[in-house]
Amino acid sequence: MAIELIPLGGAGEIGKNLNLVRYNGQMLIVDCGISFPGEDLPGVDLVMPDPTYLYTCRDEVLGILLTHGHEDHVGALPYILPNLPVPVYGTPLTLALVEGKLRERHPHADLRVVQPGETFQVGEIEVEVIRVTHSIPDSVAYALHTPEGAIVFTGDFKFDHTPVDGQRTDFHQLARVGERGVLLLLSDCTNVERPGWGESESKVSDAFYTLFAQATGRILITTFASNIHRIQQAFDMAALYGRKVAILGRRMEQNVEIALQHGYLRMEPDLLINSRQLDDYPDDRLLVLTTGSQGEPLSALSQIAADEYPRLKIRPGDMVILSATPIPGNESLVWRTVNRLIRLGARVVHEKIAPVHVSGHACQEELKLMLSLLKPRYLAPIHGEPRHQALYLDLARQMGYRDEQLFLLENGSVLRIEKGVASLSEPVPAGRYLIEEGVEGVPEEVIHDRRQIAREGMLIALVTIRAQTGELMDEPQLIPRGFEWHNEAQPDMAREAIRAVLDKMLPAELSDWDNVREEISMTLRRFCRKHLSRRPLIVPIVTEV
Amino acid sequence: MAIELIPLGGAGEIGKNLNLVRYNGQMLIVDCGISFPGEDLPGVDLVMPDPTYLYTCRDEVLGILLTHGHEDHVGALPYILPNLPVPVYGTPLTLALVEGKLRERHPHADLRVVQPGETFQVGEIEVEVIRVTHSIPDSVAYALHTPEGAIVFTGDFKFDHTPVDGQRTDFHQLARVGERGVLLLLSDCTNVERPGWGESESKVSDAFYTLFAQATGRILITTFASNIHRIQQAFDMAALYGRKVAILGRRMEQNVEIALQHGYLRMEPDLLINSRQLDDYPDDRLLVLTTGSQGEPLSALSQIAADEYPRLKIRPGDMVILSATPIPGNESLVWRTVNRLIRLGARVVHEKIAPVHVSGHACQEELKLMLSLLKPRYLAPIHGEPRHQALYLDLARQMGYRDEQLFLLENGSVLRIEKGVASLSEPVPAGRYLIEEGVEGVPEEVIHDRRQIAREGMLIALVTIRAQTGELMDEPQLIPRGFEWHNEAQPDMAREAIRAVLDKMLPAELSDWDNVREEISMTLRRFCRKHLSRRPLIVPIVTEV
Repeated sequence: MAIELIPLGGAGEIGKNLNLVRYNGQMLIVDCGISFPGEDLPGVDLVMPDPTYLYTCRDEVLGILLTHGHEDHVGALPYILPNLPVPVYGTPLTLALVEGKLRERHPHADLRVVQPGETFQVGEIEVEVIRVTHSIPDSVAYALHTPEGAIVFTGDFKFDHTPVDGQRTDFHQLARVGERGVLLLLSDCTNVERPGWGESESKVSDAFYTLFAQATGRILITTFASNIHRIQQAFDMAALYGRKVAILGRRMEQNVEIALQHGYLRMEPDLLINSRQLDDYPDDRLLVLTTGSQGEPLSALSQIAADEYPRLKIRPGDMVILSATPIPGNESLVWRTVNRLIRLGARVVHEKIAPVHVSGHACQEELKLMLSLLKPRYLAPIHGEPRHQALYLDLARQMGYRDEQLFLLENGSVLRIEKGVASLSEPVPAGRYLIEEGVEGVPEEVIHDRRQIAREGMLIALVTIRAQTGELMDEPQLIPRGFEWHNEAQPDMAREAIRAVLDKMLPAELSDWDNVREEISMTLRRFCRKHLSRRPLIVPIVTEV
Repeated sequence: MAIELIPLGGAGEIGKNLNLVRYNGQMLIVDCGISFPGEDLPGVDLVMPDPTYLYTCRDEVLGILLTHGHEDHVGALPYILPNLPVPVYGTPLTLALVEGKLRERHPHADLRVVQPGETFQVGEIEVEVIRVTHSIPDSVAYALHTPEGAIVFTGDFKFDHTPVDGQRTDFHQLARVGERGVLLLLSDCTNVERPGWGESESKVSDAFYTLFAQATGRILITTFASNIHRIQQAFDMAALYGRKVAILGRRMEQNVEIALQHGYLRMEPDLLINSRQLDDYPDDRLLVLTTGSQGEPLSALSQIAADEYPRLKIRPGDMVILSATPIPGNESLVWRTVNRLIRLGARVVHEKIAPVHVSGHACQEELKLMLSLLKPRYLAPIHGEPRHQALYLDLARQMGYRDEQLFLLENGSVLRIEKGVASLSEPVPAGRYLIEEGVEGVPEEVIHDRRQIAREGMLIALVTIRAQTGELMDEPQLIPRGFEWHNEAQPDMAREAIRAVLDKMLPAELSDWDNVREEISMTLRRFCRKHLSRRPLIVPIVTEV
């Protein structure tokens, strides 16, 4: 029986992970994530893997395995599960976070808690749960054992020997899986461009010690709301230096509550104060934890930086620690926030000038160690762009792998392994599925219109035709938006061009409004290209009286 | 007599440098640059410093000093000089590059060549030209000596002891200027976040040796078209490894021609071949130098990456070296190009995985050395965002400077020094001036419209009113662009809302079309916010029959 591995998201990109594994007509989904759109998708809220192919396999799907609780691995569940109500497997924290996200759209999901080290059976597939370290607690890799062989998903990982929660990667289990034999490894390769071995999450405390010792006023720390380790380090530091902690931002409040409930955060009960109490404490007795590490315009920190947050006004003496890295695409928002905070008088410390952040992804030597432990026959890096995937395959070649063992997958690729031999089959439909407020599946043409108008502007042409004669009533009205005429003569010239083309049309042609609209569009497109070097979106409106 | 220093561009930002120095009613402009717009300015080609204040000082301006030939220091000349035809001073290569840029819009500029080491007089100001090293040859700093004291502009610089052209920074002249006394230093601070000392431009050759030795097929190198040093290293490497060089991209061809003419590039005459001859040589005998290091969509490299460049199709075995860094904002375009080249089979080597690029800006120890050499009384970092400026001032504090000696300027700031005491006066108008094909000074409202439409879409409402009675003819037409209705009932509901509001208006109100348009806009804005959670740009069109 063949095994098929089909990534629908996360292959050739960083974000929206979704992988399918099929064996003997039984399918498991590994991760179910979203991406956040960049400037090339104006107005779009979320990007999901196109679920079309997935839904055609509806009857085969036995369940969804989640490696960890980050949005790019779980964020599509609220959109997928209502259409595909299958069991969801994950570790306690992962499922606790997922439960909150599902409350609105799919409150009665079948969530099944699994523990690292555990093995369970889904259909003919034996699933092994392996603890790894990452920038969120309770992260795991999965080994999927089938009679044809095992597929291992590393999930997002790094090898942190001194994790904040003391829960190290299970090296022994990885070694056992490797000894038993791995047919195919799907590895994280996000940080493959970094040589050596990444710093431990615990290293961030060293930077915090120095900064807390230096601070004379309030300290604000922003980080990813899901980085419970980082939040723990901030709590510990506040306790040590006698500062109370206020949390700003709904997402961070929720995550702290969940993590406390499930025992993933430890602190004295009186450490936290309400953000309304900020003025009751002296500045050097306060730590504020806040959302907004990505410069999100509506976040608490962005409002503080814009001097528009009522409960907290920045003043000289305040220190802001940006304990996160800008996700590609967010750089300009993040640095705008930093620059505004500096202009308000804060000292701002960020990753570029002090070690206040470490990455959650494995560097080159860690990636090689995973390969050495698992010694898979076939290799396909995911969770990386082609530049990361290609470099990962170069590392594997240095370790002795041959080209026929290495696969650079794209979304929709079908990697089929039969009798121990892997090859690529005909790809399946894959792509992106755009979601915005109230609309799932925003058509690409709508995005195309938005982008064209944004770059080139738009020209509305209103033409009124007398019904009986087909002749033009009055002058055509031309309304430019997002561009301006170069001189006063141009609108007259453009109107004249419309009149000329309509004059040439026969009465029969004039009664076909689609045709009239098309002629007007073509005329104005040509006019704008020639006289304005511009390609505005043309919107012809024809009315009849 | 007071000295005034007024940055109109480049203070609190990286890009579009333009500084004014005024002494006794005599004004010099130092640099005259542009920026390239990011995604927040869709459709805009260039951003220039707002010249309004500059033009009000028209009668005082005696000349423009250029530190080097990069666009962010010279690019606004074609727009400023026609309105302000003053002498332009610069080194030979800088003016040769400027001459080409001015050919179209201002061919008879008064360009005055100055040499590093030279001193010349403009009005009462004595200008000293000091050689520095940077990523373009013939870069200089300026010391402006006035009876009140000296102002030094470092220009963009690094301290490279082994520059490709052998022309080191003139440390002795800097030392002499420092001994004579510097009142105010305006320093580059772009790279202040990097500790230590930057690598020499010559270091890039080491990486090239390795890569040229490994390459079995064609080598493509892309870099900034103005990086003559880098181009020289590529030429040298090609000669050494027996490869012919073809140049793709008009800008690079032009710059190579100018540099050859003026003796800034050296090579054997038969090294260059025409890009039409590419097929006449075996792959391992070819080096292609190409534009497109920033992923510019129309560049040669972007076309090659899109497999749309007729004369060069990428095949496995080709190596592409990205010998440049993505300018902030260009990252996604650059990585898209890289990913496409990899998908076509090329090996792509870039800064993150091999030392194929070094920066042209000074790191922390270099910035401190400049301070030690010049020992200015006052300090104001420019060519950096507030985060860079603030960090630079921190370095100065570590060196013993006191707060009253340090200034964090913004565009429009007026730093006034009188009797040796510096202070900030009332700022002057400053900002950005947007240029696109055929339009200088694109209004900010046009940009606002474009951005709103891009994010939210647009709703056109066409309402026809009967002239005699003021009553609504037919149904209002609603045309959405860039968004879609959530369901079929919504357009009917929206039309009904328009009808309801018009019904309530008195005949007198209906005859005031501005009023009618405003009512329709308000109604539809409210409707869209409530029912679509969306704020499209509303374009009401009222016609009468």
